[in-house]
Amino acid sequence: MPTHPHFAPAVQTLRSSVYAGARPAAGLTPIPLHIGDTWMEPPAGCRMEDFRVADHPGMHRYTAVAGLPALRARIAELESARTGLETAPEQVLITAGATAGLAAAVGALVAPGEQVLLGAPHWPLIAGAVRAFNAEPVSVPLMTAVDSAEEAVACFERLRSKRTAAVYWNTPHNPTGRVMPREWLAALSDWAKSRDLWILSDEVYEDYVYAGEHVPTRPLAPELTIAAHSFSKAYGMTGNRCGYLVGPGRVIEAIERIITNLHYSACTASQLAALKALDGPGQDWATRACIRYSDLGRQASEALGLSAPEGSTFLFPEVSSALDERGLPGLLTDLTEQGVLVAPGPTFGPYPNHVRLCFTAAEPEQVRRGVEILAKRLGV
Amino acid sequence: MPTHPHFAPAVQTLRSSVYAGARPAAGLTPIPLHIGDTWMEPPAGCRMEDFRVADHPGMHRYTAVAGLPALRARIAELESARTGLETAPEQVLITAGATAGLAAAVGALVAPGEQVLLGAPHWPLIAGAVRAFNAEPVSVPLMTAVDSAEEAVACFERLRSKRTAAVYWNTPHNPTGRVMPREWLAALSDWAKSRDLWILSDEVYEDYVYAGEHVPTRPLAPELTIAAHSFSKAYGMTGNRCGYLVGPGRVIEAIERIITNLHYSACTASQLAALKALDGPGQDWATRACIRYSDLGRQASEALGLSAPEGSTFLFPEVSSALDERGLPGLLTDLTEQGVLVAPGPTFGPYPNHVRLCFTAAEPEQVRRGVEILAKRLGV
Repeated sequence: MPTHPHFAPAVQTLRSSVYAGARPAAGLTPIPLHIGDTWMEPPAGCRMEDFRVADHPGMHRYTAVAGLPALRARIAELESARTGLETAPEQVLITAGATAGLAAAVGALVAPGEQVLLGAPHWPLIAGAVRAFNAEPVSVPLMTAVDSAEEAVACFERLRSKRTAAVYWNTPHNPTGRVMPREWLAALSDWAKSRDLWILSDEVYEDYVYAGEHVPTRPLAPELTIAAHSFSKAYGMTGNRCGYLVGPGRVIEAIERIITNLHYSACTASQLAALKALDGPGQDWATRACIRYSDLGRQASEALGLSAPEGSTFLFPEVSSALDERGLPGLLTDLTEQGVLVAPGPTFGPYPNHVRLCFTAAEPEQVRRGVEILAKRLGV
Repeated sequence: MPTHPHFAPAVQTLRSSVYAGARPAAGLTPIPLHIGDTWMEPPAGCRMEDFRVADHPGMHRYTAVAGLPALRARIAELESARTGLETAPEQVLITAGATAGLAAAVGALVAPGEQVLLGAPHWPLIAGAVRAFNAEPVSVPLMTAVDSAEEAVACFERLRSKRTAAVYWNTPHNPTGRVMPREWLAALSDWAKSRDLWILSDEVYEDYVYAGEHVPTRPLAPELTIAAHSFSKAYGMTGNRCGYLVGPGRVIEAIERIITNLHYSACTASQLAALKALDGPGQDWATRACIRYSDLGRQASEALGLSAPEGSTFLFPEVSSALDERGLPGLLTDLTEQGVLVAPGPTFGPYPNHVRLCFTAAEPEQVRRGVEILAKRLGV
């Protein structure tokens, strides 16, 4: 045992910001393409100003840990319709963002020293959540590396060990903008079942598909899958910190035990906003946003000489042609000096020659300028 | 390694609700004295309805992980004045409630298998946070058991082991309503320094002191103390899930690494509400609430034949006289049938014959009725 006071081992493996490489240069208004956000304001009627104490007395008090009963019930209905699986309100857990939900799921399902296989490139925070609970994230190159369901399964199987407790994948995909085909998901789910592994299925961009279709994982492995969803991404409410998990009742109950002690509950007003969005103006807003995002994704990908994104709000260009002897840090420094912030590839797994950009994180005109600067540097 | 899929060991040691004993009986409107909340609405000007997109464009987007820079700076100023310790904004971390802050502090400072000594009776969720990170909470009977600073130190020292990484105490005290004397805090802090232990000092009720004075721990052990504070408790905003930690810069930076992956940040609108409360109507509201709470605490304690609370919003009566062969569960069942919900003593440590009640959790008239029912049962 080391001399106290020391930090927990987890701290040594974590960075404070996954975007530590990107800092705005003095004097320039930065174009923040490094964060997964939207420039759009949330639907009218679903903003904080729309929830008044006169209509919602006690709206600044605690809710139950698992969330407002009306919100859980509404989501259960939607989820039943969306997946064809009869889903009870007890299978839904409202969380302080999908991030908090996925982190708590790791806390409930993965013991210290166990491993979680992450379909890579992966959403950066899932690796951090696994490390925070003193478990080990293992990157499994997938979206940039394989072309078939069989290869996808082989990639995961190759890195599986006796210590593997769970697998994580996300679709529509952050950061590549691809959408996982049904056959891949079916084959991977069958494989996870055969290996008795939990599946953490991150579907927070499910409403943003521009080609193909989003396939939810739960129907493929209902007893093993914990699906993460986000009001942040669906309705432009990232700052509200409200999302939800859906899974088997006994698993949701276990995750609730962790949530109780990690953050207790999501913000009450954020839950009201989520319920309002589901009941009213959310769907229209998401439909309009989807058309707009699709255009922006196509324009950005064309400017960079990439395939158009099939979903999500990201592109993940390979940038080797723009690197000099300073490597990726040099490129990030140069771009930052020009006011363009992008996320470094290594935060997504073993990707020293990639960057991620979010094509909805700033006003479209700003994004266009940022992409132009990047394209010029890449020699496109 | 057990066969997968299994739950993490932490789950086995956690309950989903620390108030699992209390359920409202059918037909009766329950009087919810089991939760630490307030019936008062937050200050006018600091409610969600007061924050408009027109005035705060982007107010539904992400903030930095550590919180709004203006809020961190304002708290640093206040904390410098309150403690006499020059405190920089980098020493302040905004968290999704004090709960999320304390849990992340455990994650950053306590390794799996290590122990945290909890001054008992203790706030229930701290034990759960320690368990969630696969560490071991150790109850140290304190507020109900000792009469001097020397005894307090002896109690902690007796239960210290080589595995002890940190100590936790809270004042004004949840659940007993006592305020820890300066000499105790000074002696305990000196002891923690001599043993090289982290101090988690939970001061969320600092604004609610009715007798004596609140003594902040940071000036007594600035290099070792992480202090937790709450806008929830200060300004009647429990549902906003916004609080903060203050501590040494390098520790705050380490905790920020954990926060990034556990919940990313507190709700943006909640942070705006906190800043507004600090800058304007919060202090008046808290002053008025303090007078009101003091009256309510005195009335409730008189009705129960207890000493008046010195601070916080709780009483922790010993209820042996009301127990039959069914023990505490029997009493809780009976009270629930009469519509009165209280929190069971065992969630606060080794207290099988105590209950906790919050005398601000419902309208004063409701609280009065609930307390009357309990007093009658206790034969007061």
